[in-house]
Formats: sequence, structure tokens, C-alpha cells
Amino acid sequence: VVTFVRVFLNGQIVDEKQALVPLSDRGLLYGDGLFETIRVRDGNPRWWNRHLARLSDGAAFLRIRLPFSGEELRAGVLELIKENAMPEAVLRVTLTRGVGPRGYSPKDATAPMLAMSLHPFAPPPESMRLATSSFRVVAGDGLAPFKTANKLCAVLARMDAERLGADEALLLNTDGAVAEAAANNVFWLEAGTICTPPLAAGALAGVARSCVLELCREQKWQAEERLAKPDVLLKAEGVFLTNSVAGVVPVSVFDGQPVAQSELVGQLRRLLEQRVE
Amino acid sequence: VVTFVRVFLNGQIVDEKQALVPLSDRGLLYGDGLFETIRVRDGNPRWWNRHLARLSDGAAFLRIRLPFSGEELRAGVLELIKENAMPEAVLRVTLTRGVGPRGYSPKDATAPMLAMSLHPFAPPPESMRLATSSFRVVAGDGLAPFKTANKLCAVLARMDAERLGADEALLLNTDGAVAEAAANNVFWLEAGTICTPPLAAGALAGVARSCVLELCREQKWQAEERLAKPDVLLKAEGVFLTNSVAGVVPVSVFDGQPVAQSELVGQLRRLLEQRVE
Repeated sequence: VVTFVRVFLNGQIVDEKQALVPLSDRGLLYGDGLFETIRVRDGNPRWWNRHLARLSDGAAFLRIRLPFSGEELRAGVLELIKENAMPEAVLRVTLTRGVGPRGYSPKDATAPMLAMSLHPFAPPPESMRLATSSFRVVAGDGLAPFKTANKLCAVLARMDAERLGADEALLLNTDGAVAEAAANNVFWLEAGTICTPPLAAGALAGVARSCVLELCREQKWQAEERLAKPDVLLKAEGVFLTNSVAGVVPVSVFDGQPVAQSELVGQLRRLLEQRVE
Repeated sequence: VVTFVRVFLNGQIVDEKQALVPLSDRGLLYGDGLFETIRVRDGNPRWWNRHLARLSDGAAFLRIRLPFSGEELRAGVLELIKENAMPEAVLRVTLTRGVGPRGYSPKDATAPMLAMSLHPFAPPPESMRLATSSFRVVAGDGLAPFKTANKLCAVLARMDAERLGADEALLLNTDGAVAEAAANNVFWLEAGTICTPPLAAGALAGVARSCVLELCREQKWQAEERLAKPDVLLKAEGVFLTNSVAGVVPVSVFDGQPVAQSELVGQLRRLLEQRVE
């Protein structure tokens, strides 16, 4: 018996091999879209409202209409989890401006495309090796906080990192300051303060990033958004990465140099994992 | 009788409604691809070798394998022109890294996708109104010369321009210098010299741009790559846009101000249109 993964496509749940998109979809032509990557844990999409809020904000910025309500999308996700029997998974939500006439102007593209698919969840690694990429994000970029489908910079940076024998790429911005990693936000410990670049550095508004900052406030740990050059990571008392799927992952090596390890990072990792919303 | 437009998809010519791409194509997920927009004139793709060279260079930079030879692609184009009976058209070539596992790393995506489609050709306008966009390209961006599928900046800039009642958007770079327009390169006349920003300003390596620079050399007209702030366009003796489909188009209005008109721009327009390769 051959079974197919079931996928949500524009309101219908279909077999993966029927999940096809026209060649003239503007997501494919121009990267004219957004996405979310969400951990499914114990049968539920984690931090659902936060992910949905970022998707909605991005759609408003790009002027793409979200074609389903949050309730409809959540019902679709639960149905996908059930049909695929995948209570532990990674959910990918893809929104594009849909089919439109050739050319950059989006004015006649009025039928957005929304798809959701489940992928295997792998337990996060104990630590990651980070290497600085030559690709840079734009300081002050108004698009940076949103998870757009223009991700060549992240793709090429990750390719760079893998060639250097690292697991993840650090992205600096056009001013040479630390911005983020290809698929993670970056934090470091500096004289007891938990630091991360401000979004204006060109960082994605990461859901796990916000949760870590909230945790720090609750625990009364000193935390701060700070602009810094990359050498701060070598002098730090600890460096870690965050994303919605893996949570907190310590950095073991940065540009080939060992990074100091801190008990606080392990504590943050456990607290974030236990956190309810 | 219902007729469908015929499209080239991965080596086969199929009806447009069968030209479908898997949801997991990395072009759709991350804009992980490239494209070319080519004028078809009198049954032939114009400047074919130049477009193919840019596509090959971009594919090498992104490390995407071009799955067909130039000869195979040209034969496909001629077949498309014949089957669609469209000797005057716009050809769109789309190359993506194809289907791959979820995540930015491209290492397991080994089957690139290549599609070609024909679209109606409309005679270019007599002139265009240009307006400065708030979106900026990156000065010195190594990706800028290639026509990648990460075009949100151009999409949003064009949307801006249309809201301002203009036809095309001027993009400045992160240093505030003139870089290009959303779908065109930019030229201006300054004390008799024909000027355009260097590629290092963050400009696409436009095929029509190169041809105009070659024409100037042949005509012994003074031409130069020059970094400039946008106010140079208001003081210029003439401003024009170039792309492969429309050729040379004079700018009539820049940011609501009338732009000086020059006979030289009309001459360049005619010479470029008459040029054989």
C-alpha cells in the first residue's frame, strides 16, 4: 500500500502529489510571498497565535490578502495532523500573491495561494558550529522582520557555512554589525546580560526570540537589544541560537574558535521548552 | 475550439494548464532561482546569447545546474514560437533549484526545474514617469547583477510608484546613490556624457544596458559608469530607462518634476531598435 502525505492547498486537503502550483504563481516568479515554520508538539501547532500574527503583519505589509481566517487555518492544521498521524512535526505555511500577469506590478493578482504541509520533526542538536557568511542583510530593512519568500541570502549563507564545516551561518548587516543567522536569531551573554541585535539591525522578528526576551523579563534576568560587531561573540560568556522549531541551541564554535559555555544557556533552553505559550 | 498556450516545462512542451510545479519547489519556498525576460522579434529570441550567458553566470553563482544546453533551449524556444504562432512576444525563462527537503540548505536538491513561456508583446510607451521608492538595494551586493527570483523589492517599489501615479520606480542603494529602476536600468545625460550607475551600485547587469554602452562606444559618444545621488536626474539633459523588452524609453517626469528631453535619447532608441545583436 502506497500512502501519500496529505497537504492543505487553498482550503482543500489533497495528496502531496496533487499539491501543484501554476508556473505563473508569483511566489515562484518573484518570491512574492511569505511563510511560517511552526513546531507541532503533542498534536498542536506551538505558538500558533504568534506565528499567525507575524504572517498577518507581513501580508498587510506586502498587501496580500490572507484568504482564510485564523480559525479556518487552525482547523486545517488539526485536520492535517490527524490525517497524517503526525502529532510531532514541523508545519510549513506558505502564502503567495498567487497567479498574476507577467511583470512586477501586483495590481491584477487578486487570488492569493495558501498551502500548509507537515514535515518530520528531528530533535535539535546539542550545539551548533557557527561561521560568518560573506552575504549581508540590510541594516534598517523594512522587510527584514517578516518571513518573506526572498531567502536566497539565507540559502547562500547556509551553503557557505556548510563548505566551511559549520552548521549555521552568521549574517552581518551592511554596517558590519551582527544581525541574525540564516535560520535563527542570535543571542550572546556579555557581562551577565543576555543580548540580541535589535530588529533594526536587519533581524527577523523571531517567535522564539520574543519568547526568550519575555522569559528573561519574567526571571528578572538582565536582557537587552544591542548592536555589536561579530568579535563580541568570541569574547562572550556564551552564545546561542533560537528558532521556533529547535528552541534554544548553544553555539560551540564560532569561525573555528571555541565559544565559552554558560549554565544559563542550558537553563534558558529548558525553560523555553517547558513554556506553555 | 478552446486553445491553450503551450509552455516548455523540463524538456517537454505542454498545455499551460498542465504547467504545474510541486509545492516543494525551492523557487516557490525561498525564491531559490533565476529568470530571464527576452524579447521575441520576427520569430527569434533577441540577444539570446547574452541572456543565456547571464543565466549561466547566475546559475554558477547560485550553484544550480543548468539542465539543458543552450542549443536545446533555443530549439525549445523556436518550437514554442511555432506552436503558439507568436513571432512577436515576450519569452520568460525560469530556472529554480527544484524540489528539495525543507530547510535552507540546498545540498539535497539535485533536480533543477526549467520552464519557458511566451507572453504578449506590447509596444513600449513613448515615455515613462519615474518616482523614487523607499525600498533600497544593497550597494556592492554580489547577487545584484544576476536576475534572481528574489524580487520583492522590485514588486514593492513598483507598487509604491503606481500609488504615486508613476509608471516605474527608481531604486536607490543603501548609500543613497542611484542604482536602477524596478524593471529597468537607468541612464542620464550630464554635460553631454551618457551616464549609468556601475553594477557595484547594486544594479542588474541588464542586457539592453550593455548594448547601449556598446552603441555609445561605436558612435564615439562619451559614456561613463558614474555614482550619483538622485538629484542628478532633475538636473540632467535627459533621463532614460532600458530593458530587453522595451529597449530605450525616455523619462518624462521624475518625482513629479518634468525632465529635460534630448534628441540624443530618441537617436539611441532608434539605433538600439535597429541593432542586429
